[in-house]
Formats: sequence, C-alpha cells, structure tokens
Amino acid sequence: MKQMIQENQEVRNGVNVTALTDAMNAIDQDSTLAKFVFRSKNQWLDGGHNRSTIEGFYGVGGEQARETQFVMDADEPMVLLGFDRGANPVEYLLHALAACVTTTAVYHAAANGIRIDEIESRLEGNLDLRGLLGMPGANRNGYEQIKIKMKVKGEASPEKLEEAIRIGQKHSPVFDIVSNGTDIEIQVEK
Amino acid sequence: MKQMIQENQEVRNGVNVTALTDAMNAIDQDSTLAKFVFRSKNQWLDGGHNRSTIEGFYGVGGEQARETQFVMDADEPMVLLGFDRGANPVEYLLHALAACVTTTAVYHAAANGIRIDEIESRLEGNLDLRGLLGMPGANRNGYEQIKIKMKVKGEASPEKLEEAIRIGQKHSPVFDIVSNGTDIEIQVEK
Repeated sequence: MKQMIQENQEVRNGVNVTALTDAMNAIDQDSTLAKFVFRSKNQWLDGGHNRSTIEGFYGVGGEQARETQFVMDADEPMVLLGFDRGANPVEYLLHALAACVTTTAVYHAAANGIRIDEIESRLEGNLDLRGLLGMPGANRNGYEQIKIKMKVKGEASPEKLEEAIRIGQKHSPVFDIVSNGTDIEIQVEK
Repeated sequence: MKQMIQENQEVRNGVNVTALTDAMNAIDQDSTLAKFVFRSKNQWLDGGHNRSTIEGFYGVGGEQARETQFVMDADEPMVLLGFDRGANPVEYLLHALAACVTTTAVYHAAANGIRIDEIESRLEGNLDLRGLLGMPGANRNGYEQIKIKMKVKGEASPEKLEEAIRIGQKHSPVFDIVSNGTDIEIQVEK
C-alpha cells in the first residue's frame, strides 16, 4: 500500500493527518487492523560483528511487503574487542528509544494541531561491563539508567511543546518496552 | 586504543581471547575500568523520519573516540504514514536484541573454548497499534511478547551449543534491559 498525499488532505509535521484520522476511524470499526507483527533476521559474521535484515511485517489486516530491505551491522569498538564495523547493540537500543519517543511525539502533535519545527535529543546510558562478562560486582547486566535530554521548538508555548514530548513518552512503544520490560522467549533450534 | 592481534595471542570466533582475559584481569584489579557510558544524538527530520549519530563513549577509565561516526535513519512504512526511509524504531529494537544476545554468546563461547561456526536468529514482536495511537483497547503500547528462534552450529554437542546461547541470553545487556526494563529519565530543555 502506497502513501500518496492528495490535495485536500491535511499534512502537519510531515504527517498526513487526514490519513491518520481515517486510520483511527477504521481501527475503531475493526480492531484487528491494529494488530502488528514486526520481524528481523540476524546473522553472526565474526567476533562482535553481526548483521540484521528487515523486510516485511504484518499489519492493517495482512502481510505488508516493502520495496526496500533494511540492513544494519552491529559490532563492538576496539576496546571491547571488535573492529568498529557498526554501532554496538546497546547503542542501537538508544537509537530505537530516541526515534520512537520522537516519532510518537510528532504524530500526536500533528493530530493535536501543534506545529513542531525541531526536536533534538541526546541520550546516555551507563552500564557496568562486569555484568556482560559474568564477573561479580555489577548491579545488573544492562543499563542502570538511561538519561535523555530533549530540545523541542515549534509554534506553541514552551509548556505545550513539553507536553507534546510527554505525550510521546506516554504512548511510545519502545519507551514502554524499555522502561517496563517485556516477555522474551528464545527457542534454540537443533 | 587500537586492537591489534599479535602472533602469540589466542583468537577464537573472531574474539581475541588473550585480550579478553587480560581485560577481565585488569577489571578484577580496578573495577572502575568496567564503567561504561554509551551515547547517541537524534535529530528529527520530518514526519516519522529521524536520524541518530553515534560517536564516542566513556569506558576503560576514559573517553573513547572512534574513527567512524555511525549514522542511522528511522522512519515508518507507508501504512504507518511514513516513507520507508529506514527501519522503524520497534524494528531497530529487535536488531539491538538479536545483536546483543549473539555477541554475548560468541564472546563467552570464545572464552569457554567453544568454536561457533554459525548463528542465525529470526525475531518477531507483536503489538497493538491502539497503544501508540492513544486509543483504548490495547494491553500495552509496546511489544506484548518477543519471540526469537536461534540456530547455532559449531564444534560442540547440540546441548553445549544451546548452552552457549543460554549463556548469551543470561549475560546480554540488551536482553536484561528489554526483559526487565530500566529507568528512563527524560528532561525537556526549554
């Protein structure tokens, strides 16, 4: 399904608000349209180097193909015994989080009539490598905390713009996953 | 700090096991070397399109620069009102998870003397879009569950190879973050 913006449609923040409203009305009539399944494949290459490919997904009641295949490489930096052939997994997680809060904020702002001109965020997460290494002493294996500083500019009061970010935070799927956790099942095929 | 593999060093699965053992011994003497801070910056571009850049980080007792800057674009597919200029945030999260479990498994297998020849994984996560849209009816905003199917081949029994994956799962930072959740603080600058 292609997205084409027609002359009589309202577009704000690059989001087709008319199509968004239509989609919400359709989901309101048939909630199965809201069921999505996203997928990825990953192949180990060498050491800390591995590659994911992402293509189709399920949603809006059926399989959705893409014209593009997305390929992303992960590796570790030199001091973590990799060769810097890509960002590392915990850095990709920061990207997923920033991207999701941003997109969710922008879509809701579009629907709420708020024009956004700029959003920038800086993230950091701290961890103790002893967790990954299986050595005693770390509080946990993953990030102990993630801090995000966001700057937002647009055609609304600072309070309204901050509220737009908080709405993004509230509804963002990745923010929910990373702050609350989710069930992961790993099946090893023999 | 560059990683150079010397002739007398043991390398397994592409991991310099001698350097790994040296690093663990150094951390054992001085646990501050295990403190890492990873960072990313994200800039909103348009609609569901935004871009992260990743460069330096803190670790091994100091700031670590990289020769490379990693740039990654997120967008939404057409049916989610984007223009497919990149994988979407929840897909990046699947990549981060697969990459981390894989790398952690490979590093520990290297340290434990297990030769890995191949790891492939297929991931899927299901979510109800009503959460993101702020509509009632969804159990949550993020993935309800993530399923991972992993294939592993190497020079060990199927039981030992499955154990290698379980060790990866047990020590992986992203597995910990995504299964248990972590504290996120968002500060909006005015």
